[in-house]
Amino acid sequence: MPLHPDRLFPIEADARSIARRLFCEVERLPIISPHGHTDPLWYAHDEAFPDPASLFVKPDHYIFRMLYSQGVKLEDLGVPRHDGGPVETDGRTIWRLFAKHWYLFRGTPSRLWFEHAMETVFGITERLNESNADEIYDRIAGKLDEPAMRPRALYKQFGIEVISTTDAATDDLAAHDIIRKSGWDGRVIPAYRPDAVIDASRADFRANVERLIALAGTSLNYKGYLEAHRNRRAYFKARGATSSDHGHPSARTANLSVTDAAALFERVLRPDVSYADADLFRAQMLTEMARMSIDDGLVMQLHPGSFRNHNATVFAGFGPDKGADIPRSTGYVEELKPLLDAFGNNPHLTLILFTLDETSYSRELAPLAGHYPALRLGPAWWFHDSPEGMRRFRELTTETAGFYNTVGFNDDTRAYLSIPARHDMARRVDCAYLARLVADHRLDEDEAHTIAHDLSYRLAKQAYRL
Amino acid sequence: MPLHPDRLFPIEADARSIARRLFCEVERLPIISPHGHTDPLWYAHDEAFPDPASLFVKPDHYIFRMLYSQGVKLEDLGVPRHDGGPVETDGRTIWRLFAKHWYLFRGTPSRLWFEHAMETVFGITERLNESNADEIYDRIAGKLDEPAMRPRALYKQFGIEVISTTDAATDDLAAHDIIRKSGWDGRVIPAYRPDAVIDASRADFRANVERLIALAGTSLNYKGYLEAHRNRRAYFKARGATSSDHGHPSARTANLSVTDAAALFERVLRPDVSYADADLFRAQMLTEMARMSIDDGLVMQLHPGSFRNHNATVFAGFGPDKGADIPRSTGYVEELKPLLDAFGNNPHLTLILFTLDETSYSRELAPLAGHYPALRLGPAWWFHDSPEGMRRFRELTTETAGFYNTVGFNDDTRAYLSIPARHDMARRVDCAYLARLVADHRLDEDEAHTIAHDLSYRLAKQAYRL
Amino acid sequence: MPLHPDRLFPIEADARSIARRLFCEVERLPIISPHGHTDPLWYAHDEAFPDPASLFVKPDHYIFRMLYSQGVKLEDLGVPRHDGGPVETDGRTIWRLFAKHWYLFRGTPSRLWFEHAMETVFGITERLNESNADEIYDRIAGKLDEPAMRPRALYKQFGIEVISTTDAATDDLAAHDIIRKSGWDGRVIPAYRPDAVIDASRADFRANVERLIALAGTSLNYKGYLEAHRNRRAYFKARGATSSDHGHPSARTANLSVTDAAALFERVLRPDVSYADADLFRAQMLTEMARMSIDDGLVMQLHPGSFRNHNATVFAGFGPDKGADIPRSTGYVEELKPLLDAFGNNPHLTLILFTLDETSYSRELAPLAGHYPALRLGPAWWFHDSPEGMRRFRELTTETAGFYNTVGFNDDTRAYLSIPARHDMARRVDCAYLARLVADHRLDEDEAHTIAHDLSYRLAKQAYRL
Repeated sequence: MPLHPDRLFPIEADARSIARRLFCEVERLPIISPHGHTDPLWYAHDEAFPDPASLFVKPDHYIFRMLYSQGVKLEDLGVPRHDGGPVETDGRTIWRLFAKHWYLFRGTPSRLWFEHAMETVFGITERLNESNADEIYDRIAGKLDEPAMRPRALYKQFGIEVISTTDAATDDLAAHDIIRKSGWDGRVIPAYRPDAVIDASRADFRANVERLIALAGTSLNYKGYLEAHRNRRAYFKARGATSSDHGHPSARTANLSVTDAAALFERVLRPDVSYADADLFRAQMLTEMARMSIDDGLVMQLHPGSFRNHNATVFAGFGPDKGADIPRSTGYVEELKPLLDAFGNNPHLTLILFTLDETSYSRELAPLAGHYPALRLGPAWWFHDSPEGMRRFRELTTETAGFYNTVGFNDDTRAYLSIPARHDMARRVDCAYLARLVADHRLDEDEAHTIAHDLSYRLAKQAYRL
Repeated sequence: MPLHPDRLFPIEADARSIARRLFCEVERLPIISPHGHTDPLWYAHDEAFPDPASLFVKPDHYIFRMLYSQGVKLEDLGVPRHDGGPVETDGRTIWRLFAKHWYLFRGTPSRLWFEHAMETVFGITERLNESNADEIYDRIAGKLDEPAMRPRALYKQFGIEVISTTDAATDDLAAHDIIRKSGWDGRVIPAYRPDAVIDASRADFRANVERLIALAGTSLNYKGYLEAHRNRRAYFKARGATSSDHGHPSARTANLSVTDAAALFERVLRPDVSYADADLFRAQMLTEMARMSIDDGLVMQLHPGSFRNHNATVFAGFGPDKGADIPRSTGYVEELKPLLDAFGNNPHLTLILFTLDETSYSRELAPLAGHYPALRLGPAWWFHDSPEGMRRFRELTTETAGFYNTVGFNDDTRAYLSIPARHDMARRVDCAYLARLVADHRLDEDEAHTIAHDLSYRLAKQAYRL
Repeated sequence: MPLHPDRLFPIEADARSIARRLFCEVERLPIISPHGHTDPLWYAHDEAFPDPASLFVKPDHYIFRMLYSQGVKLEDLGVPRHDGGPVETDGRTIWRLFAKHWYLFRGTPSRLWFEHAMETVFGITERLNESNADEIYDRIAGKLDEPAMRPRALYKQFGIEVISTTDAATDDLAAHDIIRKSGWDGRVIPAYRPDAVIDASRADFRANVERLIALAGTSLNYKGYLEAHRNRRAYFKARGATSSDHGHPSARTANLSVTDAAALFERVLRPDVSYADADLFRAQMLTEMARMSIDDGLVMQLHPGSFRNHNATVFAGFGPDKGADIPRSTGYVEELKPLLDAFGNNPHLTLILFTLDETSYSRELAPLAGHYPALRLGPAWWFHDSPEGMRRFRELTTETAGFYNTVGFNDDTRAYLSIPARHDMARRVDCAYLARLVADHRLDEDEAHTIAHDLSYRLAKQAYRL
């Protein structure tokens, strides 16, 4: 079925008309993508994407987690095993298995993203199923070789104005350098993600820290460690970065004395680091990152509350990021207080908060962001980056925090072809929300037009200092 | 007022039309009732139900909890006292008191269930109130003697294909044997509910365990105790059971070594069992039950998170199940991990999760069920088995877990006459949800028809291996 | 833009018509305001309100928290500094700053309250912005001198039947005495708020207790302390009070022996009181207050779960109530049990529960209030006193607790001119909710009319014994 022009709009006719009017003015705005996980090598080398399965199935944890939940083996989907064990390598075979189970995605955003990419990129409007799997595979595969299907061409076709990748603190950003030196006019920027040198519960933590220190040429003590962060942040900033990003198990922050923090740093470097110390160090480092943000102007993002790699068997066999991350209850009120006591009123800090725990929207996040000058709310994230999830985000935050303590949309994806679909969905859902406010006379339509533009474009650019 | 054919459908005309088309194809599907609390003796003896008050008021905790909350005494509603103290016995007097307070149920599902039963079973379409109480009492009472009002006849009239009761592990299932030997072709099956032999915080725990061991002819040690469970599960399975059911204060699981578990078993048998040990034993036994499920194929249900008998005065006077059970915050992510580490990827296990804490839908349950092959989500339960509750269930779980990690509807009731009303409500609410997805173009209507059928009939049958 | 007569009604035409019919019968009902924070001196002295900024900006924490969150300094809004430091005093300058940022309130209830007051009190229908700020300032200022703008005249114009203030336990209620002796026929009553003599974590706790004891003429021991409460409650009751109000960090209650409570009282009076003791004492005193309520008939209100003065910098500079109170996760099930074990079934107690944690609506509060005779649910509170917040309150509580375990609306405000706007909003949202139930045939329209009247007027009067 072709994409319907009114999809995701209110059902009631008057509200739908308002939504249409709002959407038609923002539909074609450039895409600001201030947080995501596309591979900078794509833009650097601009090579053709491989087969359809490699593009749509193997790397997309939304896709293979659902298939896995219904008994499909990850090996059969070509997801590489950690131990190098055998997995399916034939793209067509994987695609057929995917197509056979495509009905599982009814009612999910993956369905909408996929069909948007099918139609807008490949001109395919048939619904995928077992019997048309081969034909659709061939049509996609046939197009992937075309120059218009290369990453840079798609960047233009998608209307991207700027896109940020997410990069380890120890990354040399070579791909970004290639992009910049290539003369291509796309704007692909890095973001500073130091989790691997901050999370002392990781097996490779000390090695990562040593590498960080080596890269920065500082000493292996707390002072040298902080200096190394500053050094690397400057390195990122010189390559276009405007933000740092922090994925922590909780939103806990701490603000220890320098002496205590230095002693803690020594303890977390030991192989027998305790859970409590590792947790306290992560907490302390959020406050340090805020302090550095104030100095260097990088916007700070906090993505807390995911229990990573919950499935021990899948983690052992396939490693991280295989759809086995589960949200958990996440508090912000006590957790953020040490950082906010230090910097919450600082006009130079922007700390963008995300959550996987929707209960915090109205109870904690909107009240916090609706008061502290340093805080902003990131959009509905991950499991909630969906029509209902985005609607709940607006309904639960707007009345306390308004629109202007939010920061527009993040696609937060490694699925390149889903980027326009995700922005399209976000713009539609926001226009639908605004249309309802206009239709029941909580807002005037001229204001709704301004807000729709702000949510689709301006706020992301402003909040991320792009 | 007669039941309106469009009740619970979307208000907007186009969506309502879609809902009508979806519903008319599932309205008459047979009822699969895989979890509930009807009395097997009803089907065994097939006797007439007593007076209207005994049918609708005295045994229905939804009804008397609301009346009690507004100052009506349980004694005056004929709810039997624990100590045998005097309570109202005249059905008509109870009914009048009920009718006088019927307005309290405005906006509640009890109102809709009751009126559905009134009209479809008794042909009564007047709204109950003080002045028509006697007349309605007489009309119901007059019909209760008719053969068509007997449990087996109603089973047929309701279109039930299979119904499960819930039975103590030590139950001899005599009523089920009577049903099976009677030659009646209704399918009434037991479910294995071993809470009373697993929950060491109960005063009668040791006596229950001793009875279990005696029934199974095993020894009073951990090995014999597990063997007794296996034995009783086989006994239930031989009488048609396809599931076990577990009502625990939390979803906590554990996976101790056999030595530690055996030592724990010895400790929980003592009269001075600690809270911590009782809790750990419940946790351990969930994992043991999962292990047995993999062997014998019984589907496992977990109903956690109710603070039972919260009202000490009501419990002392009237015993358990008197409307004083209150939900509490319930976590699943850490709690289920020991069990899931052991069996979460096992293709032979089906563990159906329920909750009274709706915050877990989008945060924990949908992500867990949308990943682990062994997990499925039970429908909106108890306080949430209502139009808004069922709508929230779909809105909060579908985008992450889809439809196919859910298991259709459970009526979970001891109120026999409410069974068709509850299935009718669930089918209407699901069709309304689907109609909205079709109306805003998230789903095609042909698919919605398939899903409506799945949710109304097929998924329950499949998930419960019926 | 003039206020639209259909604002906040359902968008769909049939449901909107029903809402209109319901609303037109309750729109003009007198206002019952059983809980709020207007200043009794207003009614006592009946003086003109000062300039527009003093009326709308300086005292309204909803307003200045939003402006502060976007970088506006509290000093520039004329919010007085704790240390007497300089702040803006020119009303017009403050007003211009407010007008310039008025767009921040799009989508918030403050926007709707303000525009309601502008139109209904001042006849102003233009949307405030930087360019019309001066003109609107002049029009408001010009009217504030008129006799019709005095507090008593507005009381009549607003249709208030009774309004409660909230007063410290040690307040002499002199303003209330002036009102009563003035012969004015408005009904302004006090409410007993003893937090300052119950919360031992306050620096001024012991001084407050000593003052309480002195006022009552009792002794400084636990017995004398309780007697002093009884004495002051009688003092309040003699001046019209029908309720007490308790703002606690949590809903924790305790029921210690008299000996233990007396020993605790001695400990909390010491300057080195521990957090644990202060918390236990608050818990104990809730149960004592319930005991006294049973004796003297004052209705008890519990407002738990706010982390007060979260922003250390703002608190140090400006003191309490400056928009830096943040809700936190709040439990009721275990917390209220000691009090409920003692008095939950007592027909003489009414305990009205509020929450800032919406997750408790369906999980805890509706099940508790739908069972315990002593419990009622207060309306959506503070951050949730908004169209979406009130809608969620009904959707999440009605199916379990019905309408009759709720108590109508509280405006809970110190912003006098927002009172009619808030009641208007609550009545509209309730009528919209009821209209949807009628439109999808869950409720008959004649019943909806009765309920609309109950929610708008009768239930508040009844629950608060007015």
